Amino acid sequence: MREELLKAIREALNGDPFARLLGIEVQEVGEGYGRASMRVRADLLNSQGFAHGGAIFSLADMAFAAASNSHNKVAVALSVNVNYRRPIGEGTELLAEAFEESLGRSTALYRILVKTKEGELVASCQGLAFRMDRDFLGERPASGDGPN
Amino acid sequence: MREELLKAIREALNGDPFARLLGIEVQEVGEGYGRASMRVRADLLNSQGFAHGGAIFSLADMAFAAASNSHNKVAVALSVNVNYRRPIGEGTELLAEAFEESLGRSTALYRILVKTKEGELVASCQGLAFRMDRDFLGERPASGDGPN
Amino acid sequence: MREELLKAIREALNGDPFARLLGIEVQEVGEGYGRASMRVRADLLNSQGFAHGGAIFSLADMAFAAASNSHNKVAVALSVNVNYRRPIGEGTELLAEAFEESLGRSTALYRILVKTKEGELVASCQGLAFRMDRDFLGERPASGDGPN
Amino acid sequence: MREELLKAIREALNGDPFARLLGIEVQEVGEGYGRASMRVRADLLNSQGFAHGGAIFSLADMAFAAASNSHNKVAVALSVNVNYRRPIGEGTELLAEAFEESLGRSTALYRILVKTKEGELVASCQGLAFRMDRDFLGERPASGDGPN
Repeated sequence: MREELLKAIREALNGDPFARLLGIEVQEVGEGYGRASMRVRADLLNSQGFAHGGAIFSLADMAFAAASNSHNKVAVALSVNVNYRRPIGEGTELLAEAFEESLGRSTALYRILVKTKEGELVASCQGLAFRMDRDFLGERPASGDGPN
Repeated sequence: MREELLKAIREALNGDPFARLLGIEVQEVGEGYGRASMRVRADLLNSQGFAHGGAIFSLADMAFAAASNSHNKVAVALSVNVNYRRPIGEGTELLAEAFEESLGRSTALYRILVKTKEGELVASCQGLAFRMDRDFLGERPASGDGPN
Repeated sequence: MREELLKAIREALNGDPFARLLGIEVQEVGEGYGRASMRVRADLLNSQGFAHGGAIFSLADMAFAAASNSHNKVAVALSVNVNYRRPIGEGTELLAEAFEESLGRSTALYRILVKTKEGELVASCQGLAFRMDRDFLGERPASGDGPN
Repeated sequence: MREELLKAIREALNGDPFARLLGIEVQEVGEGYGRASMRVRADLLNSQGFAHGGAIFSLADMAFAAASNSHNKVAVALSVNVNYRRPIGEGTELLAEAFEESLGRSTALYRILVKTKEGELVASCQGLAFRMDRDFLGERPASGDGPN
């Protein structure tokens, strides 16, 4: 039952139009956990020829969305801090994992790491989510009103 | 002369493949200043139907890149903090402006605001850049080695 | 009436034991605004002889507390990002100002700048506050339960 | 030899005047690791009667200083992001640990966790340090010029 819900959340996230545009795949949604992957295509590079900071952030953000929505309450990003640690060239496969550090009633905190397949750290993030009073999947669908 | 350089930096940034994928346009590069725009197309939405956090971040990042490279020394993002303040629907025109708060020898700090055309705050960021010993345009082109 | 409330909030903040320990004075509380000052005493230095990062942060935090509690709803810090820009020696007078960037129902965002009297930037912060359903002063006093 | 150097760094940090004012003790300095403790005395509280955010940050900052100076190159804080997760009452013993996530030539990144003795998460931080070309202990003592 729980497994089915996590699978349905993963499928919903893989329908995310922006993630599809970038070729990001949400590989796993666990309770308080998310993992996503992305290959650095030529159109994800910046003008210097390296993986764009926005593309790396977006990959981290999808892992964060997976972990923070895994409790089937809609969670939206309030604040994210990202530190970039290594330039990445075209063709590299990147993996992002999000881990729940703290789950509160209204907010939850995640640590998100982006690495190469070889385990080299590319970016490290903290993500704070606001948890809304609505189901991610189910009878109380999300609308636009939030924490602000 | 200075105006020509700023214009050339703007043109180089508008050749950025990832910015083109998202439809981001760098509109202005001044000394310590950058401005970029983006229309929230259907393929920039998340699975809930709002502008994706990664797309909004990427717009801010392009304004940050414009401001931080405006001195014609290659600047790379070390750390960015983003706070999201408002959900945004499809079709909205967003504008990001980056302002230099502090310019040091090795690092520089920027404040980046993303707003709607009506001036509503969508996201507010701090961006810290590492300044490398190479020209952004000119005889000492960028390579992959950086602050780390 | 409003002026009296703002003055009472300032007085309550100036009774803050930790602020007193550091010699921090809250100078002004306006709607969505706060200002605090601190002299860098010998016991606020680090082992290298410069103003301690924790002391500078604490000064910024008091300006943030002033601004975020100015609406007389208890506001607690969720997330703060600080960038340090300049080493400061003993005896320097520092001034912190907090400005409200966005006021939401549950959260609010502030920009906090720490400067010398000469206006040199020492630290620049973003502070995100959670707004609780209790008065800062008045009939519904604060307790320990919060956003988490 | 290495052990003696780490011990000397710990002793130097325990001479930090601000840490002494707050009763912070650096308990351990390892390579890329630091641990510090603090008891929440009455004069470390805020006006609401809970441990002050500035005091909790300062404890985290000392663990960060321990870890980032453990290579005996002077490291100064560039940027710190802190998320607060739990209000803390008087008398609580807090423990901060800093872990090195990435060590670069000019910058290094740390994860810092503040917990109660029972292991409850109080605050989670990311700290970015600038590494200077001077020894923390030894023949090339620190001066005020830094990354900016």
